Amino acid sequence: MVRQTENDARIVPPGGTIGVLGGGQLGRMLALASARLGLRTHIFAPEDHNPAYDVAAARTIAPYTDEDALASFAAAVDVVTYEFENVPAETVDILTARGARVAPGAKALAAAQDRLVEKEFVRAVGAQTAPFHAVDDLASLEEGLEAVGRPAILKTRRLGYDGKGQTTIGAGARDLGRTWQEANHKAWEEIGARPAILEGFIDFACEISVIGARAAGGEIALYDPPENRHRGGILRTSIVPADIRLESAEAARTITAKLMRALDYVGVIGVEFFVLKDGAVMVNEFAPRVHNSGHWTLDACACSQFEQHIRAVAGWPLGDPARHSDAVMENLIGQEADDWLACAGTSGLSLHLYGKHEARPGRKMGHVTRLKRP
Amino acid sequence: MVRQTENDARIVPPGGTIGVLGGGQLGRMLALASARLGLRTHIFAPEDHNPAYDVAAARTIAPYTDEDALASFAAAVDVVTYEFENVPAETVDILTARGARVAPGAKALAAAQDRLVEKEFVRAVGAQTAPFHAVDDLASLEEGLEAVGRPAILKTRRLGYDGKGQTTIGAGARDLGRTWQEANHKAWEEIGARPAILEGFIDFACEISVIGARAAGGEIALYDPPENRHRGGILRTSIVPADIRLESAEAARTITAKLMRALDYVGVIGVEFFVLKDGAVMVNEFAPRVHNSGHWTLDACACSQFEQHIRAVAGWPLGDPARHSDAVMENLIGQEADDWLACAGTSGLSLHLYGKHEARPGRKMGHVTRLKRP
Repeated sequence: MVRQTENDARIVPPGGTIGVLGGGQLGRMLALASARLGLRTHIFAPEDHNPAYDVAAARTIAPYTDEDALASFAAAVDVVTYEFENVPAETVDILTARGARVAPGAKALAAAQDRLVEKEFVRAVGAQTAPFHAVDDLASLEEGLEAVGRPAILKTRRLGYDGKGQTTIGAGARDLGRTWQEANHKAWEEIGARPAILEGFIDFACEISVIGARAAGGEIALYDPPENRHRGGILRTSIVPADIRLESAEAARTITAKLMRALDYVGVIGVEFFVLKDGAVMVNEFAPRVHNSGHWTLDACACSQFEQHIRAVAGWPLGDPARHSDAVMENLIGQEADDWLACAGTSGLSLHLYGKHEARPGRKMGHVTRLKRP
Repeated sequence: MVRQTENDARIVPPGGTIGVLGGGQLGRMLALASARLGLRTHIFAPEDHNPAYDVAAARTIAPYTDEDALASFAAAVDVVTYEFENVPAETVDILTARGARVAPGAKALAAAQDRLVEKEFVRAVGAQTAPFHAVDDLASLEEGLEAVGRPAILKTRRLGYDGKGQTTIGAGARDLGRTWQEANHKAWEEIGARPAILEGFIDFACEISVIGARAAGGEIALYDPPENRHRGGILRTSIVPADIRLESAEAARTITAKLMRALDYVGVIGVEFFVLKDGAVMVNEFAPRVHNSGHWTLDACACSQFEQHIRAVAGWPLGDPARHSDAVMENLIGQEADDWLACAGTSGLSLHLYGKHEARPGRKMGHVTRLKRP
């Protein structure tokens, strides 16, 4: 990589401070990775308690739209990054106006926050997605169902609506004694009658993801894709290497690199793919941040996704994404973390706990990784 | 391992707090390891700034003999450990009187703080040491020189005397125009005329160390010994595996286990050995703490020496000390850390920086580890 002078000036040296919006487990693991590199972390989050505060050099507890708090934060840190994709655009605007550098940038955030923009963006770099149709009312929902077929999934374009984010529109409305119209209406109400996207069902062989990183100077690093298994909409297991053809893995890696270039991306991205039965890959969605399906890199790679992200946003050269071991990562969800002592006592299992006080159902409390010699 | 009920009661669960005396790089890496396991860290140290504060959930800045501060500390943490062997006995007494559990215990600390007691302890478990002789005055120094021969090294029994801790008594006093008596007197003055130990020179093939861990219930875990290379009295490089015979490595591991049992040890210990030309091993010294020659375990093992220590003192089962890769660890001393950007850009090199502000000569600023497939 040729590092240009304007990029050199943006290198955050050891002793510098990484600002992180959000203080969950991802913020916590970013803070731990920063510390390893001799960097300080300043967490900005609204919660009184969260997993990241305990390992950060500084914290600001304030709403994400608190202008004064953001101004002080911008002045206190050398670069700002985030652990969640729903950072308000306003937050980034305020930080940028105060001279803060935010990475990944506004373009990536905007694309990731809107499912329609995201899909269009993916198509624009020449990658496949599920068939989709923009839905703004019942009429466009009916059009969409004709275009993508039934069953289909209706999702709000933007997330964070009290779990009312998505619903399936089945093929069997008549069996439930409803008309199509009644079923459509119910689905539309269920997601809050908000701007939405209708996606066709994909009959995939498996799901994989690529954790990629791009440095400010354009250097790119790509981890090998794990196969990801979900249950109840939550990632349960990532297995690397995935049991897929080499060409599928290469196609997914190539698309990830293209997406990062098109987004002027700086940092780590998590891109989820469906692998079809013929080996073709299709982008499901991407997250402009470190990703749960990359947690295995903590134990199986010399440079984890967390360190990689910090290197990228701090203007450092990227680390080596090669893995020294194969790995299986399992999330510990809710009460599963009560088994921590048994996990700790199981030979060869690396245990990671996030310091969350309460094991609510569905809450990610930690994860375990088992390494295997490749 | 059979875990007994009285031990079960002493398990520090996730969310609990590990108290650490000392806030240097070892305290920092212990705090990072605690965080990984969902444990909080509370650092107790006298410095206004130090590497560990930035990654700890709580800190107490006070002298090690401040009774009130120690009492509050004892009440705030679930177990106390330390990152340096010169913790005053008084500190441990105060903490213990306030109900704190301190690990490793007073027995290990007492043995490690006095070179004479240490050597006698090593001999008592049947291991070899260099020939030595207790020195309390010029007369016993002369006796010692007759017993161990010249050249020899005169060392204060206790450390921390402004760098006046040791001096070599050569074979060539006459060449310098001095009498033996003059040379002896000069050496005795040089170490401050304090209780000392005279050690004979050992003609060794190489130096190795064993990082061992012992749990409260008696379970033992031993890492493979690295070969250690020093320069100017400071560790520069650890290479694992060491290029030694299997029997030498096994002998060193066996002695380490015996020492831990004899010391009722709980935690990680670093035992340094000379390997003689015939393959025999001889204990040089031991440190009742995580050890610089074990830093390679951060990158080459599923469970690092830091996590292992936290597991032991928290009453958890020990982790697997097997390494997934061979490793070479190099310390970054003083100005060498100025090369951090070149290190970060060297493929396959894992960089660790300790967050120290000033790169004074001889100061350990960080380390790098290179992994190799075994």
